[in-house]
Order: sequence, then C-alpha cells, then structure tokens
Amino acid sequence: MNFAAIIHEAKSNLAYAYDKETLHVRIKTGKNEVKNIEILAVDPFNWIPRKDGSGIYDFDIASVYKIKMEKEQITRDHDCWFAEIKDIKWRRIKYCFILENDKEKYIYGSHYRHPYTEDKDRLYDLSNYFNYPYINEEDLYKAPDWVENTVWYQIFPKSFYGGEKSKEGTLQGIIEKLDYIKEAGFNGIYLNPIFESPSQHKYDTTDYFKIDKELGDNETFKKLVEEAHRRGIKVMLDAVFNHCGFNHPYWQDVVKKGSKSKYFDCFYVLNPNKPIVAGEIINGKPQVVPREELNYFTFAYTQSMPKWNTSNPIAREYLLKVASYWVEKYDIDGWRLDVSNEVSHDFWRELRKRLKAIKPSLYILGENWDNSYPWLRGDQFDAVMNYEFSTPIWSCFRLNNKEKMKYSLDDLKVELSRLLVSYPKHLTRNLFNLLDSHDTERFFSLVQERVELAKFAYLILLTFPGSPSIYYGSEIGMTGVEHTNRQPMIWDKDKQNKELFSFIKKLIQLRKKYKSFRSENLSWIELEGLDNVLSYKKKGREEDLYVILNMGEKNKKFSLPEEMRNLKLRDCLEDKELLLDSEIELFPYDYKVLLQKK
Amino acid sequence: MNFAAIIHEAKSNLAYAYDKETLHVRIKTGKNEVKNIEILAVDPFNWIPRKDGSGIYDFDIASVYKIKMEKEQITRDHDCWFAEIKDIKWRRIKYCFILENDKEKYIYGSHYRHPYTEDKDRLYDLSNYFNYPYINEEDLYKAPDWVENTVWYQIFPKSFYGGEKSKEGTLQGIIEKLDYIKEAGFNGIYLNPIFESPSQHKYDTTDYFKIDKELGDNETFKKLVEEAHRRGIKVMLDAVFNHCGFNHPYWQDVVKKGSKSKYFDCFYVLNPNKPIVAGEIINGKPQVVPREELNYFTFAYTQSMPKWNTSNPIAREYLLKVASYWVEKYDIDGWRLDVSNEVSHDFWRELRKRLKAIKPSLYILGENWDNSYPWLRGDQFDAVMNYEFSTPIWSCFRLNNKEKMKYSLDDLKVELSRLLVSYPKHLTRNLFNLLDSHDTERFFSLVQERVELAKFAYLILLTFPGSPSIYYGSEIGMTGVEHTNRQPMIWDKDKQNKELFSFIKKLIQLRKKYKSFRSENLSWIELEGLDNVLSYKKKGREEDLYVILNMGEKNKKFSLPEEMRNLKLRDCLEDKELLLDSEIELFPYDYKVLLQKK
Repeated sequence: MNFAAIIHEAKSNLAYAYDKETLHVRIKTGKNEVKNIEILAVDPFNWIPRKDGSGIYDFDIASVYKIKMEKEQITRDHDCWFAEIKDIKWRRIKYCFILENDKEKYIYGSHYRHPYTEDKDRLYDLSNYFNYPYINEEDLYKAPDWVENTVWYQIFPKSFYGGEKSKEGTLQGIIEKLDYIKEAGFNGIYLNPIFESPSQHKYDTTDYFKIDKELGDNETFKKLVEEAHRRGIKVMLDAVFNHCGFNHPYWQDVVKKGSKSKYFDCFYVLNPNKPIVAGEIINGKPQVVPREELNYFTFAYTQSMPKWNTSNPIAREYLLKVASYWVEKYDIDGWRLDVSNEVSHDFWRELRKRLKAIKPSLYILGENWDNSYPWLRGDQFDAVMNYEFSTPIWSCFRLNNKEKMKYSLDDLKVELSRLLVSYPKHLTRNLFNLLDSHDTERFFSLVQERVELAKFAYLILLTFPGSPSIYYGSEIGMTGVEHTNRQPMIWDKDKQNKELFSFIKKLIQLRKKYKSFRSENLSWIELEGLDNVLSYKKKGREEDLYVILNMGEKNKKFSLPEEMRNLKLRDCLEDKELLLDSEIELFPYDYKVLLQKK
Repeated sequence: MNFAAIIHEAKSNLAYAYDKETLHVRIKTGKNEVKNIEILAVDPFNWIPRKDGSGIYDFDIASVYKIKMEKEQITRDHDCWFAEIKDIKWRRIKYCFILENDKEKYIYGSHYRHPYTEDKDRLYDLSNYFNYPYINEEDLYKAPDWVENTVWYQIFPKSFYGGEKSKEGTLQGIIEKLDYIKEAGFNGIYLNPIFESPSQHKYDTTDYFKIDKELGDNETFKKLVEEAHRRGIKVMLDAVFNHCGFNHPYWQDVVKKGSKSKYFDCFYVLNPNKPIVAGEIINGKPQVVPREELNYFTFAYTQSMPKWNTSNPIAREYLLKVASYWVEKYDIDGWRLDVSNEVSHDFWRELRKRLKAIKPSLYILGENWDNSYPWLRGDQFDAVMNYEFSTPIWSCFRLNNKEKMKYSLDDLKVELSRLLVSYPKHLTRNLFNLLDSHDTERFFSLVQERVELAKFAYLILLTFPGSPSIYYGSEIGMTGVEHTNRQPMIWDKDKQNKELFSFIKKLIQLRKKYKSFRSENLSWIELEGLDNVLSYKKKGREEDLYVILNMGEKNKKFSLPEEMRNLKLRDCLEDKELLLDSEIELFPYDYKVLLQKK
C-alpha cells in the first residue's frame, strides 16, 4: 500500500463538524490503492468498571461503531473517501481507519499503522486514534440559509443603467431595472463599490459613509435596498477595507503631518523620517515615485491606494463602524470583502462578531482567489468568490483558435473534483461561483462568442453546488477583455444574444425549482470510450439530476451505465418525458438535463 | 515520481510566517523519491510596463528568487524539506517547487505539475503558484521569549511540602522549598489547581477567586509569587475552565432552580423539563446516576464536574474575569488550561486577547494530548503540553519485562522527526515537553527503576527543543502508577536516587548555559549497522551539540561519520576535552554529550 499517499488530518477539511452532533470524515488514498475503508469511531471516555469490583475500568468495546466510507471523488492522484458520523450525543469522538484491498488490510491511525488484527490492545489503542475532542456549537461553521438558494447578479454601478439617454449608471438606474433583474430570475445583486471616490471603479474610497454623488445619495440607496427587498432580492455591497483612496482624510492628514498625524499608525509608513514623496498632487492627480522609493504599503503597487493598518485601534474601529453602519442603517444583506486575503485574520474575526451580532443572516464573502480554508473555519467568512471554480473552466473553454480547447474535460473533471473535497459540504453550498467578473475577461469573449460553448459553461455553473453569480451583461452575451470588461450594459434587445439569455433564464428557473440543482452531492458518470462528453449526477432529496454534455463536433451514441438504463426521466429543458433505453445519442454540442423524481 | 505522496499546503505548518518578513516553507515528498528541490518565489504584483509604451505589463522575471530546500527530517513515509524565504519587504509571496531526481524534473504548483521547461508561460504561471497572500503582523505566532529558556517543575500542591511533620503540602511549604527548586536549576513552577475545592486534586473548583484553605490563603499565594520572582522563578497556575465543581454556587443554583436559574444556560442541561437527578447530596457526597440518565454535560462522565457553556455571556465573562484576576492582582506568569481541547476556540481567542492585553509576556499553555496546530496558529495558545513527545518515549522505554523494550529506537526517531516538522520552528521551541505528570505513570516506574534508562530519557528531554518540565519527585526517582502518582514528595535524602538527581541537575545547568541544548535545529546522525544507538546533532549559534546514546548492553565501537571525524570537542558531562578519531567506543548504556565551539 502506498502509505505515503494517505492523507488525513483531524480538524480540517478532512474532518469537520457538520452540526453539533455530526462529524464528516474524509481520507485520501493513492488512486486505486484501496478497495474498502471502514471507520472505527468511539467515545473516548466510554470506560466501564469491571464487574469484579476491582476498580479497574475497561474500554467499552460494545459502544464502538463502524461506518463504511464511500468514494466521494477521484482527483488527479487520490481516491477521496467520505463518511458521516452521526448522533454524537456527548460531542466527543475518536476514530481510526481500516483500509483494505485484495491483498492487504491495515489499521491506520494517527501515529502508526499495522496489519489488521482483532487484538484489542491494537484495535482499540486510542492513543493511535485521530481525535475530534469536542464539537462546540460556537465554533461551528454556519452560513445564512438563503445563500445557497440565491442566484447573484453582479453590477458595476457606473455602467449599468442611468436612464434612456445616459451611458452612465446610477443607483436610480438600478432601481428602475430591478424588474428586469427579477424577471431574469436573479434574487441577489452584488454591487461594486458605491461610496465616494474619484475613480470610475471606486476602489479608492474617500468617504465610506457616503454614496458617491455621481451614483446618487444615501437616500436613493435606502430606496434601492427597500425596492430590492420588496422583490425578494438581496443586496450585497463591496467592502474595500484593505486600503483607502489617496484623498481619504486620514491619509491626507498623514501626507501633511507625517508622524505627527494622529492617523499615522492607521497606515504602514515605512520610514517615519522620510517624507511621503509619492502622492504630491499635481493637476489633481497624485504623482507616482519609482517602486524602490515607495515609502508606504499600498494595494499592489498602486500608490493612490494606501493600505490600512487594521491592528491600529483608530483604523480598526473606523472600519468596523463603516461595516456596521450599512448593515444597521440600510439593512444590506451581504458584504463582499475586497482583497480579503491581504487583511489580517484577526480583523476579519472581529468584523464577523460585530456584524453577525447585528444581523445573523448577513452573508460575509471574501475575495480570495486561492484555496481559502484558513478563512473559512467558521470564524471569518461564510464563503469566498470561487475563482477556483472559474479557473479550470476558463482553462478548459478558452479557445486558442476556433478549433482547439486548451485542456481536456478530464482535466476539468479532476479540478472540479478536487474543489468538491476542498471544503466542508455545507460550505461548498455557499461558495460564490462565477464565470467572470469586473476583474476578468468576459466569458463570452473567452469562448470567442461561440454560444454553444457558453451554454455549456452556464449549464455547469447553474447545476453546480454554490451560490452562482453572473456579471451584468454576460447573460446577454456582452464581450470584453481586460480594460473593456466594464462597458455600459447593452439594453438594445437587438444587440443582445437571445439564445444565451433565454437559456440562462430557463436554467435559473429550474435551479430555483429543483433542489437537486443546488445539491452538493455530485458524482461523475463514466461513459467508457468517449472523449468530449461530460456527464454527472446530482443527488437531491426529492429528485436526482443527470447532466450530459457532448462537447464534441460529432454525433455520439453511447451505452448508458447500468444505473441510468430504463429510467423514466423528465428532460427539463425540453419539458418532456423521456424513457431511457440502454443507449443514448447526442448531436454535436448537444446537452441533456434530466430529472428523476423519487 | 510518486505524486500522490507530495504534501504541501499554504498557511499551515508547511508554510507559515516566521516573522513579518520571513516565510518558512516545507514540503513532504515520498521517501527517497526526490533528490533536489528548489523554490521559485515571486512577489505576485511585480509587473512592469513594457518599454514600448504599449501599456502592457509583463511579469518581472528578474525579480524571481530561487531557494534551495534542505532535507529537514525523514518520517516513516516522507522526506520533509525546508527552506526560508527572507526579506519579503512587501509582505506578499507566491511560490512553486522544482522537484528533481536522477530521471525526472518537474514544476510542481498549487493545481498541477508538468515536466520542467524554461517556457515562461509555464514556469511563471502564477495561477499555479501557492500563495501566502500577506504577512500581517497581528496574525503572527508570538510567544514570550522566556519560555524556551525555562525548565519547569510541576508541583501537585497537596503533596509537596507542609513542614517537617506534615504529609500535606501547602503554599507556605512551597515557599520554603523555593531554594531547593532554584538550587536544582528550575526557573519555572507549574502548580496543579489551588483554588477552593472539596477534593485532593482540586479540579472541581467551587470558588475561583480563593485559594483553597487547606493550602493557605490569597495572601500566602501573593507571597509565593513574590518569593518565586525574587529567585527568578516563573509561576504558572492551572485554569480549570472546561468545568467546575458540583458545589460551585452557579451550578448549585441550577440544581435548585432548574431552568429558572439565571445560571441555567451557563451549563449544558440536556432536558430542561427533567430535574437534575444526579448530584443529590447524601452524606456530603453527590449521588451518581447511570450514564444514560445523565441530564447534563460533564468532564468525561464525571458527574461532579458540570461543563461550562462558554458561549453563555455570564459564564464567559465570569471565567475571563477569573483568568484576568490572577494575572492582574497576583502577577502570575502562565496559565495552563485544563482539558483545553474540549473548550471552544472562540473562547480561547477571547481569553488570549484579554490576558495578553494585561501581560504580554504571559505563557498560555493548553492541555491537548494530540497534534494541536488548530489551537496554535497564533490566535489561541502559545504551546501545548507536548504529550506527542512523551508518547513515543514511553513506547520506546516501557519495559514489558526487564529485558525488552517495546519498540525500536528507529520508531522513536521517526516519531520525534514527525513531531519536529509538525509545528513552526519558533513554536517548537515553546512546547511543554514532559516525561510524566499527575495524569500519567511516573517515568521511573515505567522503566522499572532502571536508572540508566531514566537517564537516557532525561538526556533526550533536556537536549530537545521546547520548554521541558519535570514532575515533582521524578527528579529524585519517585515511583507511582495510576492512583499512586500523586504521593507526598520524598524529602529524606537517603531515599532519593542521587545518581538520577545529580545527572538531571547537571543537564539543567548545561541547558541553561548552552543555547545549542535549546535549539530547534536537530538532525539525526546515521551510524551504519548499529542498533540500539541513538545519535543526533543540535546546531546552535555559538556551538554545536552532539548527543550519542548506546542503549545496548554491549560495548559498541563504531566509525564516526565524516562530519564528526577529527573534531576537538568538549565532553560537557565529564567536563573534559576530547579529540575524536575516526572511531569511538561506547560501553553498555554509555552516553556522550559533546560540544563543539564555533
């Protein structure tokens, strides 16, 4: 057995409390190395006195329970196994694994492994068990339950809508388009920054308590939230707490007074004896110094965005007050935290406490581009923008030329499988999945406007566990690369891609109607000998969902796997019944979305 | 290459910030799979504009730095590699690995690996780099610097000293023996619980603000701290915050008033409509109900110890006040947190904040028996009682009969190696290492009083990185198993094991004098063909330390490895110079502790 390939750790994404009496356990083993895995789980304090009155206590073997693990996903190098340990009434659990293949059987524990034996001293050697010492409710990961039922619409406010004759978006414009948004099926809007700032993107805030006057005023924003809520639409704002704008009064005070400013320590000035040479304002624009001379920390090397020092009490209180203000006074439903992976964990922990005390149902979403479990243990964010979902889809669908995709469906499958075992299951349901945003190429450009490919990707997005988001205009086929991805929304229906839009609308409707679309329970269906076909099953409580995509350019006829044969299914895109035979034929770029009621 | 065996994760014990500009990186690879590893490290924002004025930015390849990794330890299944990335001025770093053996060379990143190529799009594909997005000072792990220079003496207060004629220990007794403690070389005392409680062990507190009257009073304790500090001895107390005693007034209020008590939610009563049948006091002793009928959470199933609900504001504030009180008013130097792995992370985080605000140099030590990184990320404890150090030593040294040790020195080596890569290096230096405690068999019993074996174990303890602790009486060879491990200290010198005591004293002196004893930099020395010899080198700043133990019963003559030949060393136990040849001879149970000045 390839022992070096076995991976397990307690208190991680491989062993986490699902609720106050349930532990989820995963283990990774080398691919095709192990055939069966069983967990032995025990209450570590289950010692009973011997009946002989000797005062000696024996471990109560009768109370040990055995749980068979299931293969959850297969990644590039590992089989990933899963089991649920339920009804942990006393909240404590220790466990080990029994690994078996055709030739070997092992007891695998926290410190050593050895050939399987019924010898009690070995089998129940609790010092070699993994330990989940206690499930404390206050440490549980808990996100608001509306999130997994939400389909987001991301709006770049300056570019959305500002009336018939304007190219400039406003909050009033968004209010006027709420019916469009609702009609398309979205029930959450995420707005890029709207607070006072000199730029188009508004990531360089100068007043966090004030709506930028180009967009409207605080009253209009209040109305926007009310009107959205009236339509069942949640509102999420962008919290730019990593840095502020160069003209923010605190930073301006530092620029002027240097280390004598009471805000000096709210930022990171490197050498207090050197003046802040960057930023002298000439013709209304801060001047830029060579990177080597930069005397303060910034976002990236953007000198107009000085970085906040959130360990400074003034800065911290100020930002926490901002965060609370918009929840308390304007009843927003979510904060998306800009550059969240560069701000301290300590600050995010306090932010969570403050905000959840005001509004427990608030969604706290980090902008982390990498694997983010260190932020998602229940003490910081509810989720992150799931660029780890986007990246393999981009790699797979990006066309180097009109003919060739960059990497195979197998690569995509492997990366999505890995993602599905990266986080606790209940967390996976809240991840903010997206195909594009204000920070990326628009997806329709990436597929060189090939609508059949775009449809495939949206089909994956809208049948994947998580809280999917669509960037304004991408639903109607807007294009754009770096620097052209924030263009005004195209409202002229003749210039919209109707095929894509109606496909997306239909999928959103289905996703809302059928829980299986949202279920985190996704298993791939192996279709032997077929390239360019992606197929998976989603288990739901009320129905199962089958998705089959033929990404090839030829007709494909293939044998169905045993479990799909002779099923009576509903083709929910075509809205008709379908009796499956033992074979199915798919046309080029054909897809099937099939439901099986339970 | 055995890719399934390669383990790395950012923001873990395998990639952690050592200080505000230094990242430590580890990677595990299958044993003997890889010959060389190099890290490519980059500042992810190091993009420079093209000189052609096109406005396009290219990643600045000139700024990439390459760091060769060193093999840090070898565990049972893995080679563990280490490197330090220094001078991260802008606090951000992305990195990937170049893995090489005789046949193959790979680029290994966060999502995929592929054969090595100089192709820039592959080599500098930052989306495939691991990310340590930002080193925030406030998140850094920081422990007080006195801890690694401390040798602890653990005292079970009721059993230590109470005057010439008493068998019962008191605080006054401890004061009178501070000179003994100091003279033995200890510079820290850890006291088992001393607050009001009806039991001998005092883990069932009834008043957290009051010294138990059997032991003395608050004034005496104040004097004890002062007298200890006057001698340069730190004082650590036992914080029993997981549960209280049955007679604690809050719990008694719940017992009497049930759900009407304002303290009801300070504990975990399972069914508020059922009376708390356990605990009716008959003849001064609470009655015990069968486990199935137990209606509240307890420590283990000990019905006299109801578990605190630290998410309840009353309970939380009360315990935080207790924790603060003894630091603020009595100036204690450390809290050892009883059953710390069963109390919420959330509570410990707040405790740390409160206490470090009062006294930044306070040592916060958890009682966790397993791998404890989830508690040691900088936000909760400074260290844990390192039973993961004890366990393999126990397994190795425990005698089933006088002849046979249970498992080999190789097993010991492998487990200690694993421990050394389990935690950040600066954390390893603060771990509370021990061979026994009030919760274990005394070590001298475990080796069946064979002083030569005990000496070996203490030699390992006192040359190992960490903050070593010796349980009162074990230094003079006291014995004791479960239920007899808390016996009165033996003060009669004729009944003390002088050989062991003077050996330990000498080692403590040396540990204080030479930094290499405390260094976390431990490498094993391979002595070919020799069983029963354990040998390692400790790199220090001012000198290197060589430790060689012959655990066999025969004379051993062996060739020294290249690096040790012809060295002029100081045998610091014998206090004499030693010129090493190419061979060395060890008598049965012989040991060498050799220093090489730099």
